[in-house]
Amino acid sequence: MPSISKKGQQMPASPIRKLVPYAEEAEKKGKRIYYLNIGQPDIKTPKIALQAVKESNIDVLAYSRSEGSEVYRQKIASYYAKHNIDISYDDIVVTTGGSEALLFTFGSIMDVGDEVIVPEPFYANYTGFSTASGVEIVPVISKIENDFALPSIDAFEKLITPKTKAILICNPNNPTGYLYSKEEIQKLAAIVKKHDLFLVADEVYREFVYDDHVHYSIMQETGLENHAIIIDSVSKRYSMCGARVGCLISKNKTVIQTVLKFAQARLSPPTLAQIASEAALETPQSYFDDVIEEYVSRRNTLIVELQKIEGVKVAKPKGAFYCIAELPINNSDDFAQWILEHFDVDGETIMVAPAGGFYSTSEVGLNQVRIAYVLKKESLVKAVNILKKALKAYNDSCV
Amino acid sequence: MPSISKKGQQMPASPIRKLVPYAEEAEKKGKRIYYLNIGQPDIKTPKIALQAVKESNIDVLAYSRSEGSEVYRQKIASYYAKHNIDISYDDIVVTTGGSEALLFTFGSIMDVGDEVIVPEPFYANYTGFSTASGVEIVPVISKIENDFALPSIDAFEKLITPKTKAILICNPNNPTGYLYSKEEIQKLAAIVKKHDLFLVADEVYREFVYDDHVHYSIMQETGLENHAIIIDSVSKRYSMCGARVGCLISKNKTVIQTVLKFAQARLSPPTLAQIASEAALETPQSYFDDVIEEYVSRRNTLIVELQKIEGVKVAKPKGAFYCIAELPINNSDDFAQWILEHFDVDGETIMVAPAGGFYSTSEVGLNQVRIAYVLKKESLVKAVNILKKALKAYNDSCV
Repeated sequence: MPSISKKGQQMPASPIRKLVPYAEEAEKKGKRIYYLNIGQPDIKTPKIALQAVKESNIDVLAYSRSEGSEVYRQKIASYYAKHNIDISYDDIVVTTGGSEALLFTFGSIMDVGDEVIVPEPFYANYTGFSTASGVEIVPVISKIENDFALPSIDAFEKLITPKTKAILICNPNNPTGYLYSKEEIQKLAAIVKKHDLFLVADEVYREFVYDDHVHYSIMQETGLENHAIIIDSVSKRYSMCGARVGCLISKNKTVIQTVLKFAQARLSPPTLAQIASEAALETPQSYFDDVIEEYVSRRNTLIVELQKIEGVKVAKPKGAFYCIAELPINNSDDFAQWILEHFDVDGETIMVAPAGGFYSTSEVGLNQVRIAYVLKKESLVKAVNILKKALKAYNDSCV
Repeated sequence: MPSISKKGQQMPASPIRKLVPYAEEAEKKGKRIYYLNIGQPDIKTPKIALQAVKESNIDVLAYSRSEGSEVYRQKIASYYAKHNIDISYDDIVVTTGGSEALLFTFGSIMDVGDEVIVPEPFYANYTGFSTASGVEIVPVISKIENDFALPSIDAFEKLITPKTKAILICNPNNPTGYLYSKEEIQKLAAIVKKHDLFLVADEVYREFVYDDHVHYSIMQETGLENHAIIIDSVSKRYSMCGARVGCLISKNKTVIQTVLKFAQARLSPPTLAQIASEAALETPQSYFDDVIEEYVSRRNTLIVELQKIEGVKVAKPKGAFYCIAELPINNSDDFAQWILEHFDVDGETIMVAPAGGFYSTSEVGLNQVRIAYVLKKESLVKAVNILKKALKAYNDSCV
C-alpha cells in the first residue's frame, strides 16, 4: 500500500472536533449536550445577508474574481474606514474564510522551516496551518495568572532567530478572550520593525470588545505599513461561519501580489456567500449593540458561575466569546471524553474543548479547557452546574 | 522591508488570468471580447440548485461538518452508483472546489521534494498547487501529433524515482479534451500497483464525453482500492463554478483519515453552496443530454473553423470543453496580449489562454493556445474569424 506523507501524519486532529464521535454517541443515547466547545454562535445571522441571497437573480453561478469583486472590496474598505482603519480596496484579497487568509499568509511570507512566534495559548488550527505549510510555531507563553497579557518584549526577542519571519497574534484572542492594549500593539510594532518581521493579526473578533475597552488594530499603527497583515472574516461578526468568506489585508504591495497568485490558483472564493457577505455590511449598529450586550451578560454569568467552583481559575475575557478555565484535574482530554461517555445530570451533559491543543509546548494546558459562551445564559448556568458535578464525580472516581 | 517567501516568488501567475488587466483595458475602450480563455461555461445552472438556496430556511448560517453532511455524502455516493462506481459515503470528503481536494491530496500523500508524474500539457493550476505544496511535477509529454494520447508505459517508468509518490491525470482532459481509454487506465493501474504509487484522477468533466466514447473511472478498476484518489467538483457538471464545492474520494481509509485532518483545520466547506450542490444532484438526465448535444455541436463548429486556417493544427477533443490549437506563431503569450491591446474586427476581439502555462517543460507549447468552447456557435465562428485575421495581422506586423 502506498504510504501517506510525513506531513499528513503530523497534521493534528482538531482538538475542537476530535470529541465529536463521543458527542454523537451520547446524543444517540438520548442525552442533551450543551456545546461549549466550538465558536459557533447561536446568534441569528442578519436577515439582510440571507435575504440578499434569496433575492439574487442568477442564471449561471459563475466564478467571482480571484481577489473578490471590486464592488465588494470597496465596501469592505468603507467598513474599515468606519473603524478608523484607512485602507484601499486594492489592499484587500477576499478569501474562503479567515482560514484561507492565514494559509495564504503563511505561504506568501514563510518557507519550509521558517518560524512564526505566537503567544500561547493560541487558536488550535494555527497548528494545522503551520504543519500544512511546513512552518514552525515558536510559542511565547502567556499565563492565566496574568490574565494572558502579552509577555515582555524580552521574552519575544529571546526567541527571534534568522528563521523568524513573523509574529502572529489574535486580537481579541481566541481562546483566552484577551484584548491587546494600544501599548502592547506598539511594543510588537517596535519589535517587528527592529527585526524586519511581519506582524500578522487575526482580528476576526474586532467587534466583540466589552466594558469600556477599545480595539486597537495593527493597521492603525503608523510606520507599520510594510509589516502589517490583517486576517479577517465574516464568520463571527455576522454569525455566518458557514459562509466561508474572509479577507487578507496589507498595504505591502508585494504581499498582496504574492497572495493573489495563491488566490488565482484556487480560482475564486464562494460566490453565493460573497453576495451574503456584501449585504451583511449593511447590518445596522443596533444589531452589534444587541449582540455585544448579550455576550457581556453571558460572559458575566459564565465567569461568576465558574468562580463558584472550588479549584477553578479563570481570567475574565475583555473580548471575543471564549475563556480558558483551569480545572482541578490533570488531563482535560480524558476529562472531556469521560463526561461525554459517562456523565450526565438528568440526561443533560456538556462538551468542552480540552486546552492542550491550544498550546504547542507539550504538557502545558492539560489542566485547562476552553469554554465558548455561545449559548443562552440559562444554558450556561446549567452547563456550569454539570461541569461542577462532573468535576466532583470524575475526581471521586479517580481516587 | 520584510521579504516574502521563496515559495511566494515561485508561485506562477495564472496563465488564464494574467491577461485579465489587458482585457479590462480593451473593454474600457469599448471593445467586445469573446472569452475563449476560461472554462466558465455560459450554460445555465440547473434551476433546482439555485431554487434550493432561495427556499432554504436558515436562521444561523452555521459551519457544516468538516467532511460535509452525511446526507449530502450519501447522495453523492448514489450519484456514483448511477455511474457504476461503487463507493460509500465515508469514502468521501466534501471540499471547497476540486482545487481544495487536490491541495488536500498533495498534502496527504506528498512531502516537500516528492514527485508527481503528470501527462503534459496539464491543467495550469496543478503548477500552483504543486508549488504551494513544495512538490515537483515531473511531466511526461503527450503530443498533439498523437491527439495527446497517453505516452507509453516505458515513458512513465523511466521517470519513476524513489521520490515519486503519484501519477496525476485529468480525465477527460483539461486542456486537451483527450479521454483516456479503459486500456490506458489499466496500463496506469499496472504501473501504480507495481511501484506502489497513488493514482490521482481529476474527473470533474466525467459527463462531458462525446461521440460514442465511454468514460472509464479509476474507481471502476478492481485492485486499485488503496491507490485510487478521485478529485471531483460540481463546477463544470452543473455550470456552478462559483459554488466552490467539490469532493475527494478514496477507499484507502488512511488517506481519508489524513485528508479529514486537513479538512478540520479549515473548519468546513461553504454551507450555502452545499445546499445548492445537494439539490443539483436531482438534475434530470435531459439537462445533461441537452448540454452534451450543445457541446458536441460547438466542438464540431470550432474544429471545422480552426482547420480552415492555414498553419493551424488541432486535435479533436473527445471530452471536456477545451482544445489545444497549434498556431503559426512563436510566442502565444505575446500574441494573446497583442490581440487584446492592438487587434479587433469591427470592435470585437478575443482572449485565448497561452498554452505555455500548461507545460512545465520550458519552451514547449509556446506556439499553442487553449481554446474553451464555452460560447454559442455563432460566437465561436466570429471568434475564430477574428483569430484568423489576427494571425495574419500579427505575422505581417512581425516581418
